[in-house]
Amino acid sequence: MEVIVAKHAGVCFGVKRAIDMAFRAARKYRDHVYTIGPLIHNPQVVEQLKEVGVTVQGGIDDIAGGTVIFRSHGVPFRLAQRAREKGLRIVDATCPFVKRAQKFARSLSRKGYLVILVGDESHPEVKGLKSYVEGEAIVVGTPKELGHWAGGKKVGVVAQTTQSLENFREIVALCLEKAGEIRAYNTICDATALRQKEALDLAHKVDCMIVIGGHNSANTKRLAEICRRILGDTYHVERVEELKPPWFRRKGRIGVVGGASTPSWVIEEITEGIHRTVSQG
Amino acid sequence: MEVIVAKHAGVCFGVKRAIDMAFRAARKYRDHVYTIGPLIHNPQVVEQLKEVGVTVQGGIDDIAGGTVIFRSHGVPFRLAQRAREKGLRIVDATCPFVKRAQKFARSLSRKGYLVILVGDESHPEVKGLKSYVEGEAIVVGTPKELGHWAGGKKVGVVAQTTQSLENFREIVALCLEKAGEIRAYNTICDATALRQKEALDLAHKVDCMIVIGGHNSANTKRLAEICRRILGDTYHVERVEELKPPWFRRKGRIGVVGGASTPSWVIEEITEGIHRTVSQG
Repeated sequence: MEVIVAKHAGVCFGVKRAIDMAFRAARKYRDHVYTIGPLIHNPQVVEQLKEVGVTVQGGIDDIAGGTVIFRSHGVPFRLAQRAREKGLRIVDATCPFVKRAQKFARSLSRKGYLVILVGDESHPEVKGLKSYVEGEAIVVGTPKELGHWAGGKKVGVVAQTTQSLENFREIVALCLEKAGEIRAYNTICDATALRQKEALDLAHKVDCMIVIGGHNSANTKRLAEICRRILGDTYHVERVEELKPPWFRRKGRIGVVGGASTPSWVIEEITEGIHRTVSQG
Repeated sequence: MEVIVAKHAGVCFGVKRAIDMAFRAARKYRDHVYTIGPLIHNPQVVEQLKEVGVTVQGGIDDIAGGTVIFRSHGVPFRLAQRAREKGLRIVDATCPFVKRAQKFARSLSRKGYLVILVGDESHPEVKGLKSYVEGEAIVVGTPKELGHWAGGKKVGVVAQTTQSLENFREIVALCLEKAGEIRAYNTICDATALRQKEALDLAHKVDCMIVIGGHNSANTKRLAEICRRILGDTYHVERVEELKPPWFRRKGRIGVVGGASTPSWVIEEITEGIHRTVSQG
């Protein structure tokens, strides 16, 4: 049996940066270091951070003082404002690509564009993006959702950084029919596109695919979906204990990919776990 | 036998306006009234204008003095400038929709966008549009032509007013992949889209289709192409003398459409000609 790990399986630039910043903040400020919601969508990293003193809080009002770390997906505009008003020390770990998208969403709305956000309405990144729009904003997940939209004169389009390019393109093309002017920023992160392409290529070559990442990670879930279209034997796992011997029976090659928020040590641990499970199974 | 004439068979708003302005100029200024190239792509109208004293010239330097009428497709930026420098009286019959596209092409280039013009490079409207761009401009006729394009940071897209929306949409969607920011203006004229749709609907219902308009008219040629895909028995005619009896043999219903530059009297003349040809044939 052979286990093939995708080349870009580990954390992306923005997530790595956020983790580094959080550990540094924990070392430097020691007590009263908080995030609002998990720093990234990976429970193992969040647990490690807890061990060094970074506590997850539900909202800004749960924090009386100390240091607040803004998560990699970004925080809503008002939350950042409240943190400043409260005099908290701010460590801004927002991914620079997300910050860029926030900036475009804001500047489009200030210039009078109706803003269309291509993404998942319930995702923290999209909630954050929406909060930067000063005027009207619509969140659209699929081209279908634009069906009943009446259109507008000036329309600006920004994508969640982890969207697929195909979906973004289809939505922009549809907008063109109903708008006099379209201004679209391609805010999709290259790392996402690269990871999806690699996972797809690997799924074609193997007999079983293990997609590693938090069960709450949207980009990991999307990776698993993409692989499952090619290969039914695709499993999304967060921890090594979730591996099941029957998955690997009579399988020659096993592919491994990780979401953008999955640290390499988790991928190594699970890859070793696969070898162990196979030899035991 | 039944002859069905499409509802919007005659000249569009911009062409009608240009014809009216030219005849008015001929009445008002009498001598030395010129156009550079034909006013519209319809030889019959150009002949009528010649009779009232509007002469077609090859270039601005052929005109020593008097009145110059800018054609409905617009004129290149430098030509307009030269006309002013020479102190000619200018009657600007540029279609307001074309003027709007020229304005967008210019403002995009001034704001640092690489300008992509979706259209036919050899068409006077596109030549005019291109002349309004201050920086770099690329003319693209089909999505295929974008294949080797390296991409750009800020890309602006403007369409020739008679393009098909489908082609425009595909090209914008392709640009998104290769550009950080896309700013696209939907400059396609509604009259074009409406005319194409009507012609398509009519071609489905009849046994023979007569498409009327200048043989040098791009939009009439496109109408004929669209109809021919549905109905092999499609004929593009400019003058009544071109009608041939065999076209109508054993045909129950005959459809008639006209290009955007075809005056209604030409359509009436040819429709009468069809009835005459059938009864003689």
